[in-house]
Amino acid sequence: MEATNKHNWRTKLHEIIYEADTPSGKLFDVFLLILIILSIILVMLESVNSIDEKYHNTLYIGEWIITILFSIEYILRLISVKKPLRYVFSFFGIIDFLSTIPMYLAFFFAGGAQALITLRALRLLRVFRILKLARYLGASNQLKDSIIASRIKILVFLFAVMVSSVVFGTIMYLVEGEANGFTNIPKSVYWCIVTLTTVGFGDIAPQTPLGQFITTIIMVLGYGIIAVPTGIVSAEYAKASNKTHNKSKEVTDKDNPELKIVPLNTQSCSSCLAEKHIDGAEFCYKCGEVLHHE
Amino acid sequence: MEATNKHNWRTKLHEIIYEADTPSGKLFDVFLLILIILSIILVMLESVNSIDEKYHNTLYIGEWIITILFSIEYILRLISVKKPLRYVFSFFGIIDFLSTIPMYLAFFFAGGAQALITLRALRLLRVFRILKLARYLGASNQLKDSIIASRIKILVFLFAVMVSSVVFGTIMYLVEGEANGFTNIPKSVYWCIVTLTTVGFGDIAPQTPLGQFITTIIMVLGYGIIAVPTGIVSAEYAKASNKTHNKSKEVTDKDNPELKIVPLNTQSCSSCLAEKHIDGAEFCYKCGEVLHHE
Amino acid sequence: MEATNKHNWRTKLHEIIYEADTPSGKLFDVFLLILIILSIILVMLESVNSIDEKYHNTLYIGEWIITILFSIEYILRLISVKKPLRYVFSFFGIIDFLSTIPMYLAFFFAGGAQALITLRALRLLRVFRILKLARYLGASNQLKDSIIASRIKILVFLFAVMVSSVVFGTIMYLVEGEANGFTNIPKSVYWCIVTLTTVGFGDIAPQTPLGQFITTIIMVLGYGIIAVPTGIVSAEYAKASNKTHNKSKEVTDKDNPELKIVPLNTQSCSSCLAEKHIDGAEFCYKCGEVLHHE
Amino acid sequence: MEATNKHNWRTKLHEIIYEADTPSGKLFDVFLLILIILSIILVMLESVNSIDEKYHNTLYIGEWIITILFSIEYILRLISVKKPLRYVFSFFGIIDFLSTIPMYLAFFFAGGAQALITLRALRLLRVFRILKLARYLGASNQLKDSIIASRIKILVFLFAVMVSSVVFGTIMYLVEGEANGFTNIPKSVYWCIVTLTTVGFGDIAPQTPLGQFITTIIMVLGYGIIAVPTGIVSAEYAKASNKTHNKSKEVTDKDNPELKIVPLNTQSCSSCLAEKHIDGAEFCYKCGEVLHHE
Repeated sequence: MEATNKHNWRTKLHEIIYEADTPSGKLFDVFLLILIILSIILVMLESVNSIDEKYHNTLYIGEWIITILFSIEYILRLISVKKPLRYVFSFFGIIDFLSTIPMYLAFFFAGGAQALITLRALRLLRVFRILKLARYLGASNQLKDSIIASRIKILVFLFAVMVSSVVFGTIMYLVEGEANGFTNIPKSVYWCIVTLTTVGFGDIAPQTPLGQFITTIIMVLGYGIIAVPTGIVSAEYAKASNKTHNKSKEVTDKDNPELKIVPLNTQSCSSCLAEKHIDGAEFCYKCGEVLHHE
Repeated sequence: MEATNKHNWRTKLHEIIYEADTPSGKLFDVFLLILIILSIILVMLESVNSIDEKYHNTLYIGEWIITILFSIEYILRLISVKKPLRYVFSFFGIIDFLSTIPMYLAFFFAGGAQALITLRALRLLRVFRILKLARYLGASNQLKDSIIASRIKILVFLFAVMVSSVVFGTIMYLVEGEANGFTNIPKSVYWCIVTLTTVGFGDIAPQTPLGQFITTIIMVLGYGIIAVPTGIVSAEYAKASNKTHNKSKEVTDKDNPELKIVPLNTQSCSSCLAEKHIDGAEFCYKCGEVLHHE
Repeated sequence: MEATNKHNWRTKLHEIIYEADTPSGKLFDVFLLILIILSIILVMLESVNSIDEKYHNTLYIGEWIITILFSIEYILRLISVKKPLRYVFSFFGIIDFLSTIPMYLAFFFAGGAQALITLRALRLLRVFRILKLARYLGASNQLKDSIIASRIKILVFLFAVMVSSVVFGTIMYLVEGEANGFTNIPKSVYWCIVTLTTVGFGDIAPQTPLGQFITTIIMVLGYGIIAVPTGIVSAEYAKASNKTHNKSKEVTDKDNPELKIVPLNTQSCSSCLAEKHIDGAEFCYKCGEVLHHE
Repeated sequence: MEATNKHNWRTKLHEIIYEADTPSGKLFDVFLLILIILSIILVMLESVNSIDEKYHNTLYIGEWIITILFSIEYILRLISVKKPLRYVFSFFGIIDFLSTIPMYLAFFFAGGAQALITLRALRLLRVFRILKLARYLGASNQLKDSIIASRIKILVFLFAVMVSSVVFGTIMYLVEGEANGFTNIPKSVYWCIVTLTTVGFGDIAPQTPLGQFITTIIMVLGYGIIAVPTGIVSAEYAKASNKTHNKSKEVTDKDNPELKIVPLNTQSCSSCLAEKHIDGAEFCYKCGEVLHHE
């Protein structure tokens, strides 16, 4: 019974499209990645007027080829899952849909579905899932740990930056006024963040001596506080780095060693799309559905 | 005797307005926080000409609603404290007063009390007190510790930045001169800080080859010295982080364990407004006044 | 047999030109370094119109002197190696050739070989090889180790920066549009990187309130994420620093002590040009060729 | 014999002017510090045209008062030292002289000694010596240690920045050309450093797509390498911080404890002007001259 299920085409399709542990699954992901990058390059080229004028037809054909390939991918994703609606309303499901339809919309209704096409850029986020498989996993996890560990501290810090931007922005609006480009408080606060973060576009710049003096304080403050998140992440990262080191040592003589050694694979449940299954798992840890292995 | 005092309305009001350990106290703080943010958004919208022209009346009514709510808060704060003058002349007392009166001033005397309204931005600082309650306490304290620990070093560093800005600013004034935007030494020093902190507005930029060469030195210097405060805070933060870790371990078997474990609450003395009382404190540590608990 | 080989002129020439352990080898390197820097200064001066007009002849003569000296160096390098083709097609071989020929090309064919002359700047890279000899070795190796150790993490990080630049760049193109300087998506992505890295040229700057709001998010993001590579390198460098410290201690009582203590010299095999030979090596570790010592 | 020397006026004057361990010595230093700051503010105000026009006479008189006070200080410094020439040709001796004479020059020869007046800014450097006395000593020494420890590494790093600036600057000159503001290679290299250090003035900005692409690489490189000096200083500072901590512990049970505990004072030899004498020193460690204590 188990065996018959295991090798039907739908299970296989699910494995190829949603997972990346099998050679064909990896191949599909790499092909998809190239397709996404190509589609983004296409959108970029279209937005350049001089190129669009010259190669409009070529780009138009390329656009249709990618749209059709995306459509096929979308349909395959739909039929390979047991509960298609779950995919349709998932984050990537919505992005996949919205980045596939613009050409159809433009064909049937004519006119500006251009905006939707740019949604394809969000498809790039899928890259992280695809690349996660490889050895990058360890590196990015350690990074993620240190960022999560310092999350609250960084939030408190960003909050302090925001409050001081509002305070200084309001002061600068009063000091410089509309004549010098600080036309209203929101713009003044925006300028203040531009200065605090040391970006300094220069489209707005203080003209009065008092304004320049306050700007000096803002800049030195910004220069000084850049040290804070850096210091936090440094320390947390060093800590996370040590912990990882210790963990891998302890694992052999402590409790629950399997839990820590067993690496996660890229399987995704064909019913609820849950991920992060450990190797050797037979059932989905979330909905109890049978997990299929080749 | 104690019991009759404990439950009179003034004590309760004090608890609600100045403290945040009781549900009603928390509710009041959250409501106040929302009111402050709303009032700041209102001030921001008023400063945008296009919005002010369209919705002038709506904004005017909103301004009066907030002014009346702030007035009520101010009066409540006054009557719930035993020594109201202490509140009136405290930092937040002055800010509360100044951010409440502009509408009355505008009503009676007409004309530009606009400037005072922007003082409301300073009310945002109250946010820190309100948010301090939650779990952020631990995080921000550790941050504060590491900043305090590296305070002197950062001051020495900022001093060095200032001195080199004056020296380089003067040199650039001589090299570039008024023709290239370096109209006087203070402006030249201001430009130097803009460059050292890597903000680089670009409203003033060196034009002569020699000036550009000196600018190169300033920039590389600024790029190099950004490492110093970062390094200091990193090291101090790591130290503070270790200390916290050790402290929590030692606490159980060392002297004065209560002092270290007992968390501070948000009570504030109804007589002298002193804060940072430990849980279970019966008297104000500063003026001896009885502290009331619900 | 060994002795006769050792002291023939070709071996000596190889030692002088390719290595830097003998006094004459060091002298040659220092002389070459000065020549490279002089040639780069010459190219720089030529590019300045006002100087070129005034001293055209002097610069032209200087250019020929350097070209001839470079030609001699190139020929010497050719004849002192056993397999000259290996040098010709090595990285520095190609750079040496390309930075030597432009004057000859200009002489025979007239017209713009100017572009090739600027290739000399790449010759500066040789500086690293020359300075590596001295005590800088230890310092830069430790640096290299920490950069290599954090390579993958920094790549993941840079990848995240790139993806978010594409996403935010596309959004800004839609929000701001061509009227405000965001003429196409590639330019918009370029602007996004300018902002994320806190460079902020200001040639393009958001004009709409929504665009400025998104810019705020980009800047705060950029300000926040600058902490990540810094934190990584800090931690890795500290680790590398500790390791070096421990290694030098362990070396005396652990296995393979010679391997770790013996410093590399600057010898290069006269047959295959392989470098990184340990002191006392008699044969090339790569092709088995005899290594000659003075 | 010792006693008669000890209390003569010249010794006392030396103690007051050159040292800062006695109350009168401290007072002199504080007074001098205020005078230097006042003189710099005066120079700054003079450079502002609108202020100079209004208060020209007041500023002129103030200038003379400061000049006379500086003259007195200079003469006192001369007569209180045994070998005046050593002071005259020391760094501060030259600065003191040059910042004192401009008013005399202007009086006798008329015309622009303005430039020399600005040399007073360099007098600010004396501030470090004066402030060193106080508790800042510990802090700044630790800072100095970590900067010295990472000196070579930072030099190697700065060198890499310089070489890549020359390489990228030359490339940008070829790609963008004179039409887009990259008028010559030195200017192009200057622009490259402006970009690498994330200053980004924006007076010159790439206009061609290829130039913008290369700029992206430069910026990401600059963003990435800012991590390197920060990481180095962080690690070195943490090391220096640990060492200090360990040192103060070890001092009590190790050899040479006095050498490490005994703090330096601010005495300076009246003969050779050497500084950094330890407390209780009777003779100058450099020239053997008797050191005088009150």
